[in-house]
Amino acid sequence: MGELSRRSGVPIPTIKFYLREGLLPPGVATAANQADYDEEHLRRLRLIRALIDVGGVTVAGAREVVAALGTHADDPLDLLGAAQTAVEPRHRPDRDTPQWRAARERVTALIADRRWLIHPDSPAIDLVADALAAADSLGVDELLDKFGEYADTADRIAAVEVRAVLDRPDPASRMELVVLGTVLGEALLTSLRLLAHQHESARQLGGG
Amino acid sequence: MGELSRRSGVPIPTIKFYLREGLLPPGVATAANQADYDEEHLRRLRLIRALIDVGGVTVAGAREVVAALGTHADDPLDLLGAAQTAVEPRHRPDRDTPQWRAARERVTALIADRRWLIHPDSPAIDLVADALAAADSLGVDELLDKFGEYADTADRIAAVEVRAVLDRPDPASRMELVVLGTVLGEALLTSLRLLAHQHESARQLGGG
Repeated sequence: MGELSRRSGVPIPTIKFYLREGLLPPGVATAANQADYDEEHLRRLRLIRALIDVGGVTVAGAREVVAALGTHADDPLDLLGAAQTAVEPRHRPDRDTPQWRAARERVTALIADRRWLIHPDSPAIDLVADALAAADSLGVDELLDKFGEYADTADRIAAVEVRAVLDRPDPASRMELVVLGTVLGEALLTSLRLLAHQHESARQLGGG
Repeated sequence: MGELSRRSGVPIPTIKFYLREGLLPPGVATAANQADYDEEHLRRLRLIRALIDVGGVTVAGAREVVAALGTHADDPLDLLGAAQTAVEPRHRPDRDTPQWRAARERVTALIADRRWLIHPDSPAIDLVADALAAADSLGVDELLDKFGEYADTADRIAAVEVRAVLDRPDPASRMELVVLGTVLGEALLTSLRLLAHQHESARQLGGG
């Protein structure tokens, strides 16, 4: 465990916590107080840290993703669902209002217009409705006005990401990219968007 | 306060908490236990809820944004900085490693290649490095391979968003869109990306 901690940079108490919480499988016991951990443990530990540190996923969310990796090994769409659930925000607005329900209906109509192939109960539809309902209550018309541009942008990067998953040679490594790509890709896209805001502000304002 | 609570959907104890924490300015006292709140209070309350519920911003982050709205009213780039700081993730990976520093150098080189106009100390550079360092430690080469596509995607939507800010008629409403657009636009883009993953998976796998 000392070596696992050294190589992963994760403190021993944290590793013990992940073992207790079932995020990390136990090592192979070699003596009363000794266990062997292998490269798979190191890899799993790095996955957990990426989910939590970079993806902002909770410990419970990371446990779900790890469990999905074990049980949905043969169903990429189930795994996609688990990865999507894990990155969902923890705070949620009140969805039991007429305004929110109107926003959700608007989202399903917009998706139908685009002929997107989406499960009608997908939780991601609710997340889109959260954003539109908040924009509406604040009088921010631009989100709805530019909905097509947001959807085109999202579809463009999603096409690249799904292609990258299908380009991987075997099911296990595809699965891994579904999970990690969902989380790390979001972190990369949103941080680059913040940089691009600076660049575009300077460019469009004609500054340096 | 009862009417403010009814119209905003925010419970009275929460409103009292925001008043104590300085997120909401006090009402105009009309009697010992009575105060008047106006449309500005209602608007501010909806802004705070959007930041926290939809943007996942902390109470401390919301306080910073609200303070920036008051003090940087005349400097759009300062306000952009405050909005960007508020949406930063709360969990942060260890940045004191040679791997992370190498990732950050790579990011600044990639940005220089694109001739983006970015302040060299921008915290968003560190966030991009977080994603690339995690991808590197997990052997996910796709994030770096597709870096140009992520950057093009981010720049495309940022151009639309900055244009929308400049299209607003007066400085106060521009400012508001900088803050709300940063938070709500991220929520819309990332939730649409999750939907687009489903659509693209079905499309590229030839399913229905």
